Amino acid sequence: MRQIWTDLALEAGAAELEPEVRQLEHGIEQTTVSIRDDETAARFGRPAGTYVTLSCLQSLSIDLSTREALSRQLAHALCGMLPKDTERVLVVGLGNRSVTPDALGPRTVDRVLVTRHLGACLPQDVREGMRSVCAAAPGVLGVTGIETAEVIRGMTEHVAPDVVIAVDALAARSSARICSTIQIADTGIAPGSGVGNHRQALNLETLGVPVIAIGVPMVVYAAKIAGDALSAFAEADGASAEDEQRLAQVVERVVSERLGDLIVTPREVDALVERMSGILAEGINLALHPGLSAGDIAQLTAQ
Amino acid sequence: MRQIWTDLALEAGAAELEPEVRQLEHGIEQTTVSIRDDETAARFGRPAGTYVTLSCLQSLSIDLSTREALSRQLAHALCGMLPKDTERVLVVGLGNRSVTPDALGPRTVDRVLVTRHLGACLPQDVREGMRSVCAAAPGVLGVTGIETAEVIRGMTEHVAPDVVIAVDALAARSSARICSTIQIADTGIAPGSGVGNHRQALNLETLGVPVIAIGVPMVVYAAKIAGDALSAFAEADGASAEDEQRLAQVVERVVSERLGDLIVTPREVDALVERMSGILAEGINLALHPGLSAGDIAQLTAQ
Amino acid sequence: MRQIWTDLALEAGAAELEPEVRQLEHGIEQTTVSIRDDETAARFGRPAGTYVTLSCLQSLSIDLSTREALSRQLAHALCGMLPKDTERVLVVGLGNRSVTPDALGPRTVDRVLVTRHLGACLPQDVREGMRSVCAAAPGVLGVTGIETAEVIRGMTEHVAPDVVIAVDALAARSSARICSTIQIADTGIAPGSGVGNHRQALNLETLGVPVIAIGVPMVVYAAKIAGDALSAFAEADGASAEDEQRLAQVVERVVSERLGDLIVTPREVDALVERMSGILAEGINLALHPGLSAGDIAQLTAQ
Amino acid sequence: MRQIWTDLALEAGAAELEPEVRQLEHGIEQTTVSIRDDETAARFGRPAGTYVTLSCLQSLSIDLSTREALSRQLAHALCGMLPKDTERVLVVGLGNRSVTPDALGPRTVDRVLVTRHLGACLPQDVREGMRSVCAAAPGVLGVTGIETAEVIRGMTEHVAPDVVIAVDALAARSSARICSTIQIADTGIAPGSGVGNHRQALNLETLGVPVIAIGVPMVVYAAKIAGDALSAFAEADGASAEDEQRLAQVVERVVSERLGDLIVTPREVDALVERMSGILAEGINLALHPGLSAGDIAQLTAQ
Repeated sequence: MRQIWTDLALEAGAAELEPEVRQLEHGIEQTTVSIRDDETAARFGRPAGTYVTLSCLQSLSIDLSTREALSRQLAHALCGMLPKDTERVLVVGLGNRSVTPDALGPRTVDRVLVTRHLGACLPQDVREGMRSVCAAAPGVLGVTGIETAEVIRGMTEHVAPDVVIAVDALAARSSARICSTIQIADTGIAPGSGVGNHRQALNLETLGVPVIAIGVPMVVYAAKIAGDALSAFAEADGASAEDEQRLAQVVERVVSERLGDLIVTPREVDALVERMSGILAEGINLALHPGLSAGDIAQLTAQ
Repeated sequence: MRQIWTDLALEAGAAELEPEVRQLEHGIEQTTVSIRDDETAARFGRPAGTYVTLSCLQSLSIDLSTREALSRQLAHALCGMLPKDTERVLVVGLGNRSVTPDALGPRTVDRVLVTRHLGACLPQDVREGMRSVCAAAPGVLGVTGIETAEVIRGMTEHVAPDVVIAVDALAARSSARICSTIQIADTGIAPGSGVGNHRQALNLETLGVPVIAIGVPMVVYAAKIAGDALSAFAEADGASAEDEQRLAQVVERVVSERLGDLIVTPREVDALVERMSGILAEGINLALHPGLSAGDIAQLTAQ
Repeated sequence: MRQIWTDLALEAGAAELEPEVRQLEHGIEQTTVSIRDDETAARFGRPAGTYVTLSCLQSLSIDLSTREALSRQLAHALCGMLPKDTERVLVVGLGNRSVTPDALGPRTVDRVLVTRHLGACLPQDVREGMRSVCAAAPGVLGVTGIETAEVIRGMTEHVAPDVVIAVDALAARSSARICSTIQIADTGIAPGSGVGNHRQALNLETLGVPVIAIGVPMVVYAAKIAGDALSAFAEADGASAEDEQRLAQVVERVVSERLGDLIVTPREVDALVERMSGILAEGINLALHPGLSAGDIAQLTAQ
Repeated sequence: MRQIWTDLALEAGAAELEPEVRQLEHGIEQTTVSIRDDETAARFGRPAGTYVTLSCLQSLSIDLSTREALSRQLAHALCGMLPKDTERVLVVGLGNRSVTPDALGPRTVDRVLVTRHLGACLPQDVREGMRSVCAAAPGVLGVTGIETAEVIRGMTEHVAPDVVIAVDALAARSSARICSTIQIADTGIAPGSGVGNHRQALNLETLGVPVIAIGVPMVVYAAKIAGDALSAFAEADGASAEDEQRLAQVVERVVSERLGDLIVTPREVDALVERMSGILAEGINLALHPGLSAGDIAQLTAQ
């Protein structure tokens, strides 16, 4: 079997795992798949745990009420994964703020409502139903010279949260997934492809607290687009095993010679990152501060 | 023959036209090709005139002195195309400022040294060897509701320049061209693909003055990457004419179904646009103000 | 009388003109003042016409529903000033996009729903109750070398709108006005102080169509803050006419020596411009497209 | 004596301490002042140590060669403060990236050449005369919910540098200092006014390693401008002690009622931050990597 390189569990053969599919409000489809044992985890090349995927049309094509519904459904999925009696949360935005398709994590974190400091600094701003939330975008190794995972470990020790939520831009296999899919997983983040390869493992084992990963595909690697075209051609052609092998060799050559690090992304990626970071931050804020309305949050995060 | 969709004359079969190739300083290669008659113009699908191409490594990989050399060589090529006794110049930056890979024109224009107003407003700032230069980035039809070409026609009438220089982001056929090639043409700009399809013809005929086009490939269409991979496969395969046809059908299907408007671009496109707009503006400034040194220009454009 | 330098009619002695004050929804106060004859116009140093001012708390302190109310009230005031049977509108954003407090006009225009091109390009997107709207941010003289008013005159001739709406950042006399006041005037814009002095007259006389000006104070000149402090001191002091004169001399010296071009602005001016440009664009969109709901507009402008 | 609120030692009465003043290249003036004992420290309200100040014209008014000279002189002053045998350095950029005048620290850090990771990741990029440098912009309390000093303490423990360099935007007393003065101090940073009050003490005592502070005034508080105007008036007036007191009361009232948090800054603050962060980063890079030329650094930081 050709290796499939994607950050989405849904694209990595989840069909075999009998995912539970539900139609939610506003045309949003939710798919839940569980990897329950180490053997399955090894087969799919990703850690055991639950993967919830919310899909709809690409985020520039959906109206305001669908965006609000996405945030609500994200909040709902997140709430289902928060450890019981969660009081303190650290939200981290992974990725490089200066590279647009990789900036989803940092820009989401910019819009998360932080409250951890309010008790000491602004006690009059503390309200019922607010959790203690802090947030950081630690940057990437190439820019800081420090492993992201190390910085987050240090913060986790200092802040002692009950759970860490990590937001990251993903790479998908299919371009149709770009900015149209949100994956929420209670597995943490394993070293992987991502947009910028900026991650070491962030999980219960390395941080000492559960890690919920929220990711949205922002790019497809150009090499994969080429591979897909060839694959479609081979299928149409009724390719033999021999053909298949020749095909794989051609892909490898094209990739290494010409496509290198190139990414495939929509022209409007600046607007897409802006839009999607708003949806994610809204969902996170609703989940973490159940006592606040969407209006309260809009007002508090504006300042 | 398969249709080749590119904004670069060099990629559109220029080899047949016996281009003149010269090795310049710092590893820069200059290729000059002329389309001399209407028949040739029709065959290559682009207007008659002279196309100068400067190529080197991608602009993030080159050192400061090579960047300066690129600006100098651009200035040199531009000077060769300016009408005799040019006194007044209008520089226009085409493209959408809010879409990073399409923002090359507007960002270049931001850094062009404008002087047209100095005589009236700041006579003490006028120096020997300064031409009268004005500049504008009129935006794109989808954002303004007005045809770009119409806005530029209005400005040209008002300003009455001796020549218009139009800067634009291009789409190339080969990803290796992205941000490593500058095309300068005395043909103006014909309606074409571009990054955002935002152009109607800008040329002597439509504006009444000569138009020099400066362009740099910033993207390759994803559809083309897929096509190239298939093409490489077919070549490796020794494909028959029949195969070739089947291939074309597959490409068409993949394109229309999945790749749509997607672009292929380097991850660092934000930094690349910043870098390349600096190189272009420097070249334009040197060409238009022969009495000023690079240091003078750096100081004057900083304010 | 000390000369008072402000872009707000309300600060220029409007109290004498018996303004009509109304309390609107959400704590918004509307003040309407008319300058009816040339003598009054000369006395107040601004053109005859109607000035409507909407005031509330500074825009970072107000909640979402108050923001929506501001947009609605702006739309209402605008509708009252649109010429009867207006079909075509040109919206222009004045100011320098690269200078944050001066970027209000350009950023508002970025979010205006333009429709002028839809009939020809995207007829399926045309809806009932849409007017033909186009928009432009022509930049400032120092950046383009072309008088803003000239560019707008050229566009007005080409587009032939029934009315021009000009959006601009203002300078106020009182810092409490910053980002808390919207002025709408049917007088057009006269050459004045503004943030960047980038305006020549834009009005019925110069453009041939009525011009509605929308402005929001974004700065106070530092010189004025100093003057206000001195003025407060003199009042507290029961200053004599002689003192007053000495005072004026000191102010002049402090200003010319040290404060020059300095502006006083809130630290959060980036966020304020973002916020206020959203409120203005929403108000303009509601006024110009009465057939569309706020939700329709949010969806259409997102793309 | 009226309290003087400034981040610059030079403005806090340093004249009494017999500063050493030297005229350097390109019109740069260097002033060195030492606070040697606790008593003097208490009198001037700032920690004991050496304060070097580089002054020249405001950074938008100086030419390229003066900018380069400023970077060189900053590098020279920094080198004089680095602990003997420094091998590892952590550079931190204080301030809020989203508030332009407060973004100087984060934007400087974006341009610092980090090398700490090269040994492990890119050994071929390690060169002679490179120190191990890492860098971070930890954000501000209001955005992250975590005390900046805590985050930096955690990083310092993890990275174990020989010295920390902290870059910050300052508030000055005189508007003439804005973007025209660089202060370098071996004292670390004490809790103080700053632009955003985002600092707890960062010094040998709190971090366990020496801390060098680099700061540039970006704003003056509006309240201070008013105070200065009054003060100039009182001087011109030959004010009595009684007057002086009345004056102080007026200032206090004006401040609390109207100027609040307002800052005074040049209109071009966006461009100034861009310019000055480049000068600081260049100086830091030259000081920390003595084996690299300015050209090497330009090339390495571009990627």
